[in-house]
Amino acid sequence: MTAHNVAAYLVPTADPHLSEYVADHWKTGRWASGFTGSAGTLVLLADQAGLWTDGRYFIQAEQELTGSGIDLFKWKMPGVPEIADWLCAQLPAGSTIGVDGRQLSADQGRRWQQQFEEHELTLRGDLDLITPIWIDRPALTFNPIRQHNVHFAGKTVAEKLTEIQQEMAKKKADCYLISSLYDIAWLFNLRGSDITHCPVFNGYALIESQRTKLFLATDQVSTEIKQALEQDGIDLFPYETCSDALSSLPPESTIFVDLQRTNFFLTEHLSHQTRLITGKELTARPKALKNETQLKHWHRISILDGIAMVRFLKWLEENRTVTECEAADQLERVRRSHPECLDLSFSSISAYGPNAAMMHYSPRPTACATLQPRGLYLIDSGGQYEGGTTDITRTWALGPLSNEEKTDYTLTLKGLIQLSACRFLKGATGANLDVLARQPLWEAGIDYKCGTGHGVGHFLNVHEGPQNFSQSMKSDAELEPGMVITIEPGVYKQGRHGIRLENMVEVVEHQQTESGTFYTFKPLTCCPIDTAPLKIELLAPRDIDYLNAYHQQVFNLLSPHLTPTEKDWLARKTAAIH
Amino acid sequence: MTAHNVAAYLVPTADPHLSEYVADHWKTGRWASGFTGSAGTLVLLADQAGLWTDGRYFIQAEQELTGSGIDLFKWKMPGVPEIADWLCAQLPAGSTIGVDGRQLSADQGRRWQQQFEEHELTLRGDLDLITPIWIDRPALTFNPIRQHNVHFAGKTVAEKLTEIQQEMAKKKADCYLISSLYDIAWLFNLRGSDITHCPVFNGYALIESQRTKLFLATDQVSTEIKQALEQDGIDLFPYETCSDALSSLPPESTIFVDLQRTNFFLTEHLSHQTRLITGKELTARPKALKNETQLKHWHRISILDGIAMVRFLKWLEENRTVTECEAADQLERVRRSHPECLDLSFSSISAYGPNAAMMHYSPRPTACATLQPRGLYLIDSGGQYEGGTTDITRTWALGPLSNEEKTDYTLTLKGLIQLSACRFLKGATGANLDVLARQPLWEAGIDYKCGTGHGVGHFLNVHEGPQNFSQSMKSDAELEPGMVITIEPGVYKQGRHGIRLENMVEVVEHQQTESGTFYTFKPLTCCPIDTAPLKIELLAPRDIDYLNAYHQQVFNLLSPHLTPTEKDWLARKTAAIH
Repeated sequence: MTAHNVAAYLVPTADPHLSEYVADHWKTGRWASGFTGSAGTLVLLADQAGLWTDGRYFIQAEQELTGSGIDLFKWKMPGVPEIADWLCAQLPAGSTIGVDGRQLSADQGRRWQQQFEEHELTLRGDLDLITPIWIDRPALTFNPIRQHNVHFAGKTVAEKLTEIQQEMAKKKADCYLISSLYDIAWLFNLRGSDITHCPVFNGYALIESQRTKLFLATDQVSTEIKQALEQDGIDLFPYETCSDALSSLPPESTIFVDLQRTNFFLTEHLSHQTRLITGKELTARPKALKNETQLKHWHRISILDGIAMVRFLKWLEENRTVTECEAADQLERVRRSHPECLDLSFSSISAYGPNAAMMHYSPRPTACATLQPRGLYLIDSGGQYEGGTTDITRTWALGPLSNEEKTDYTLTLKGLIQLSACRFLKGATGANLDVLARQPLWEAGIDYKCGTGHGVGHFLNVHEGPQNFSQSMKSDAELEPGMVITIEPGVYKQGRHGIRLENMVEVVEHQQTESGTFYTFKPLTCCPIDTAPLKIELLAPRDIDYLNAYHQQVFNLLSPHLTPTEKDWLARKTAAIH
Repeated sequence: MTAHNVAAYLVPTADPHLSEYVADHWKTGRWASGFTGSAGTLVLLADQAGLWTDGRYFIQAEQELTGSGIDLFKWKMPGVPEIADWLCAQLPAGSTIGVDGRQLSADQGRRWQQQFEEHELTLRGDLDLITPIWIDRPALTFNPIRQHNVHFAGKTVAEKLTEIQQEMAKKKADCYLISSLYDIAWLFNLRGSDITHCPVFNGYALIESQRTKLFLATDQVSTEIKQALEQDGIDLFPYETCSDALSSLPPESTIFVDLQRTNFFLTEHLSHQTRLITGKELTARPKALKNETQLKHWHRISILDGIAMVRFLKWLEENRTVTECEAADQLERVRRSHPECLDLSFSSISAYGPNAAMMHYSPRPTACATLQPRGLYLIDSGGQYEGGTTDITRTWALGPLSNEEKTDYTLTLKGLIQLSACRFLKGATGANLDVLARQPLWEAGIDYKCGTGHGVGHFLNVHEGPQNFSQSMKSDAELEPGMVITIEPGVYKQGRHGIRLENMVEVVEHQQTESGTFYTFKPLTCCPIDTAPLKIELLAPRDIDYLNAYHQQVFNLLSPHLTPTEKDWLARKTAAIH
């Protein structure tokens, strides 16, 4: 810092593509502070250091920072300053603040830059102080890139590019920079393995009206793929040359950029003559509207995934005293035993009893609970298949339950059913419908401190926008046929128990009337829901009808693929309730 | 236009305060075009004229413009240009467009100005071409202004001013311009009668950190009021001097303005050195959060209003062959017979049969339907009391009903109950909860093309923000205890029937749990709901319980004030259903 004459240095936790999951190479904040949470920014001054993180990580950060000399700043808590406010108060006018701008969104960088300027401070985004001192920093990963066959993707690269170029024309943009790895993988029908559990590769794309520049590890692409891309007007360039390409855009070009999904370092490379057109990623909606081919495969692999879940749940009932890790490992084995399952879609949350009250709990072999033949066990898991990504949660009774567990479980199921069964007018958003899942819990004074559901990628990231279910007015994407989304209400009672029931559903048309077009949800997830914990008197007749019809369908779809004993087990588990 | 060298002249339909209801003086568009709808902008060129209006008025505008030479532009319909786009296409560069900027929001004026500039057109907002040629233009109304006693208002002017000045300080604003007549009447505990059915007076307010300038008809204010205002640091100035006061603000003042509620003419009077801070009216939330005194009176006058409704509905059942106008007149007589009812809160919608399918139908003595002893009659009405404003809709069976009428009525009631009975977490908005009222109708493929409800002013305008119920993401104000809002789902089937059931409710705290604070709604409206049309088999047990409890309460509150025969009638109407 002294050598570069910076008074403060920021170490965010992010990769240059602002991905949800970050490769080890980019875990700079973790290396520098010892804090292992997924969200946090380390701020270094000459003689002070602070770490800002959010409410999910206060307890963990306090433990992990003990003795480090780094102060914990509890973000958004009363009296805790924002990073920029704190820096403005600490630093004398004329100071410079440094950051590796690749780890910062352009949106955040620009807002900080503006605020700093008002206080006569300078932000420079081209300063990587970590690499020279992090001796054993893991290398950037560039694994082989392979084609995602149109047989699964349902749309050719040329079709997708044309669609995006039409959107660019509407925005009067000469070019469009995409940094989001999910959007790049989708657009070019390519997949990689540079991020754990997410089949994407490091890259950038610069789309122009006629040709497209794709920046990636060129040596990880086969000649066959190169030729196919070239035929679609796509030229390959080395991954690290994207910033140069931006610097050398023709003067007065107009470029479309999603500032929240593009890093600050890149946008700082644009000339002042380049006119920026900002907005939400143009690929987001077309990527979210799954086509018939994708959906056909997705329903097919949902059956494969359901078979794995049935085998796991049956095994679980026969092995009620394994550890959380052993259970998760067993499910992984069963799921991966089908050759179409290429990976998990995230680390399984396998949580017994009070552990399930921690929404993002992940058991570790050295510290995980052993199941017992009583109470509730929660398993949230999914697989990556070329035909689609899965995400499912079941909560299972391992034996006797308390009255409170039964009530909470039943209300959670009511929420799942009430939203799953609803019919809604075209135009409704996730924020409009979210209450349908929460209402049975709210009536009992219970809320879950997270959204009710998220969009799902197709052989991509398990969390995908723009649609989701939450109370936030930001949940403003209209739900449209072809969108796939999870519905996952829950109850989380610290120290007592955690319950979540999650199905993936597809938005489908229900009917057209003189009032307009109505949609509803069709389940993808095909797996029994435990009926043992239910207090049937809390369910309305229509709740019961919905559950019985769902179970009938699960049995019909799965049973042909099961052994006789598995089939018997499934018949019992899907038996109609009255 | 030639004399002033303007190539186009715009005639909007608005008053300088952008009020919902407009005094006759400001009905310039109506005078110039003959179109009587409440929303429309007339655009005049040298040899052409066009009127832009929205979907509510297409049929009416087509009729009223016939033979006028004015073209109808159906706003927001495919292929219909926006006003500014059309002008940019029609006019040669260098042209000037004129408008009386008092009839235009600053927000709209500024957006047009920017678009016109890009096409080398000029917008001037100081041009009133109507007054010189509208010989018998009604004079501006300045009726006497009176105090709204703190006994009803619950908060003194000084308390309110302090609160607003604190908000100004947070925004770093030296002064704050208020043009909204509702907000001015609320802030200064004053009322007038310059707008039909709305007890407000023409005025502007310029609040500074220490003193306040109030612009109004100074000769309509008593010495007593003047003295009281002066003691609170408020100086009175003539109504028409507001623009001069803005022009002569100290250089580099900062002024807070809600651009959507302030007219373009006024903001054009601000010096370029004045720094504008824009945002939503600072008075909106404190005005919406009714205090205990206001609510106490409001519940009291809701009983008075309910007594009037009961007397009217009983009379209606005994007089099933009156005209729609006679029915509305009868209700007005009954309502006004109580001395506390000072006015109606809007022109009653008294609509029989298919007329009720028109959401904004208003019967005229020369053209109104006669009721018949069958089908449904809809009455939407309200009163202005010093203790509060009321708004209620009931739909009443006058005799035999079709199966469809019964179903639609029952589903409407389900919607009313489902939203009224809900418990919701602090933080929820109208857009989050709206679906609860629509869901029973959506399941039957029915939607109503309007919001589910609106905030209500306290002895002020019957429609008041910021809270409301609708699917729109603009319905983003959190519902908070003390807010009063209507719940009014409906079914509108053109040529067949119209149904609406409307209660006013208050947001109240329900309970605090470890999940947070939960709210619910407490009805203000105290009037029976017709049970004759109900198909009870469509109601859930909890719907029935809610209705029976509501009716029990209505009977308990109203019966002590009724004659024995009225009481008998009410007992029958509020009898529990099973």
